[in-house]
Amino acid sequence: MTRRLTVAAAQLGPIQKAEGRDVSVGRMVRLMEAAHRRGVEVVVFPELALTTFFPRWYEADRAAADHWFESALPSNETAPLFEAARKYGIAFHLGYAERTPEGRRFNTAVFVHPSGEIVLKYRKVHLPGHAEYDPVRKVQHLEKRLFEVGDLGFPVMRAPVGGAGPVNLGMLICNDRRWPEAWRVLGLQSVEVVMLGYNTPSLNQDNRGFEAHHLRVLHSHLSIQAGCYQNATFAVATAKAGVEDGHELFGHSIIVNPQGEIMAQATSWGDELITADLDLDMCRLGRETIFNFAVHRRVEAYGRITAQTGAEVPAEWQPTGD
Amino acid sequence: MTRRLTVAAAQLGPIQKAEGRDVSVGRMVRLMEAAHRRGVEVVVFPELALTTFFPRWYEADRAAADHWFESALPSNETAPLFEAARKYGIAFHLGYAERTPEGRRFNTAVFVHPSGEIVLKYRKVHLPGHAEYDPVRKVQHLEKRLFEVGDLGFPVMRAPVGGAGPVNLGMLICNDRRWPEAWRVLGLQSVEVVMLGYNTPSLNQDNRGFEAHHLRVLHSHLSIQAGCYQNATFAVATAKAGVEDGHELFGHSIIVNPQGEIMAQATSWGDELITADLDLDMCRLGRETIFNFAVHRRVEAYGRITAQTGAEVPAEWQPTGD
Repeated sequence: MTRRLTVAAAQLGPIQKAEGRDVSVGRMVRLMEAAHRRGVEVVVFPELALTTFFPRWYEADRAAADHWFESALPSNETAPLFEAARKYGIAFHLGYAERTPEGRRFNTAVFVHPSGEIVLKYRKVHLPGHAEYDPVRKVQHLEKRLFEVGDLGFPVMRAPVGGAGPVNLGMLICNDRRWPEAWRVLGLQSVEVVMLGYNTPSLNQDNRGFEAHHLRVLHSHLSIQAGCYQNATFAVATAKAGVEDGHELFGHSIIVNPQGEIMAQATSWGDELITADLDLDMCRLGRETIFNFAVHRRVEAYGRITAQTGAEVPAEWQPTGD
Repeated sequence: MTRRLTVAAAQLGPIQKAEGRDVSVGRMVRLMEAAHRRGVEVVVFPELALTTFFPRWYEADRAAADHWFESALPSNETAPLFEAARKYGIAFHLGYAERTPEGRRFNTAVFVHPSGEIVLKYRKVHLPGHAEYDPVRKVQHLEKRLFEVGDLGFPVMRAPVGGAGPVNLGMLICNDRRWPEAWRVLGLQSVEVVMLGYNTPSLNQDNRGFEAHHLRVLHSHLSIQAGCYQNATFAVATAKAGVEDGHELFGHSIIVNPQGEIMAQATSWGDELITADLDLDMCRLGRETIFNFAVHRRVEAYGRITAQTGAEVPAEWQPTGD
């Protein structure tokens, strides 16, 4: 029996700073309606999908950013997403800023069953940017200030989804996709579909380097395609796109198969639904042959990956003069 | 002061089973002459560069394959390579089958200073294929039978090369390039140039899957480009190419920069020299910003990478019915 799953990346155009959750949730519900018409069983929304990408603004008082965070899910404002999921029988992935009852803040994503139950939660591990105001940057990127590092690891859950029966589901958020360690930890749990949302500027605003504008999409796609190929998994990678409060986000949402091929790609900078029909048995080829981890991995040679955080300087060669 | 290094990938066309080392070494010396004319300071030859890719033939008696191995380097047959290196002041990377005085066998590469001294030796860690005769395969791939797993880890050495001053050099061999762990262990030692030789068939002869012929080059390039980008390193990746004893090897040698861009690519299936002038300071952008490992890596979330070899089955979700 073929295990097939129809998925969508529901790219969002920009959400301006002044726009409330009523605007973003309304747009997302319309994307779920479109997904329903196209036979979709899982919709993946981007990172921090409910608001503008607020880590670009510095607040001396961290609590001044709290209005960007959700303290409950669903809330009155997000309830329409859950209602649409139930109405259409569609599961969804949502990125949002989480504030726990204890006041902890995370960059979080959840995977929600059509029933409204939360199947899986992930908190972003690889927070990019910086923690203090940086006068060199044209645009701040304060994720390290506004969020704690995720404390849930990289979980994978086997859950019934659509008509495919149980599917091994994992999640990454934005900058995580550039880190092969994150993909590998998911691969070591037999992940079959990685759901991944991002808000990525077209310009690296670090202003210290010379990273070219035209390479930003290459880097995103390269990381996702390699992650899929090397872990024999599908990925649904969904962007927030377009000019948001004056800052361009590059979009280019993609759905990728376990051979690293792009199956679908968004080509607008607005709200756009791209879909693909996944044959989940395609995950088997890689994991039973070239990436059969049990047969081919050599963990005794990987020690540095977990034993050290930063890069070391190598030994210097001394000619013997022989 | 800019640190520049001119490198070449010296792709080799096929070496037939009946051809001796005099033939392959003669061709390699001619490539070194060509490299000299083009101002090259480092030449990278492929994996097992001295002979045909012999792991495609099964021998019940392993010792019957010993004539493919080198028990000394240089030997009378390989001395012309060392002489050319000295004459032209060119360093070179050579892949070969190594038989130690104790009779151990490895798939090995060395980096040789123009003086003839061996600066760095690496023994292939990720041996693909299988150890016993496989009746399902159209072509055997007996690396797991003929070689031991490399016992030198993934070493990086800082050595003076050409006019660039000390350069951080590392090596991978063929299938290693598909494993992000291998790249990362090099990256954690601040590698700047990865030298990498391969013999990769255009068809995966496993005959169990459905991996498409047309994806083989994509997979090779994807792995190399992602490895370079994610570790802020250059790579010189050199193929043996063309129809060798009836079996097609895909070639497509490339030189890649730390942004993951292909700087040069071989387009023939024969002996071909491709060159690039590397600005080694390009390695700094990645490692000082987005891939500043000390600032951004989260080893506490990577435990599975070294704690388990094979993939596990994830937990199954149980709806609470709430």
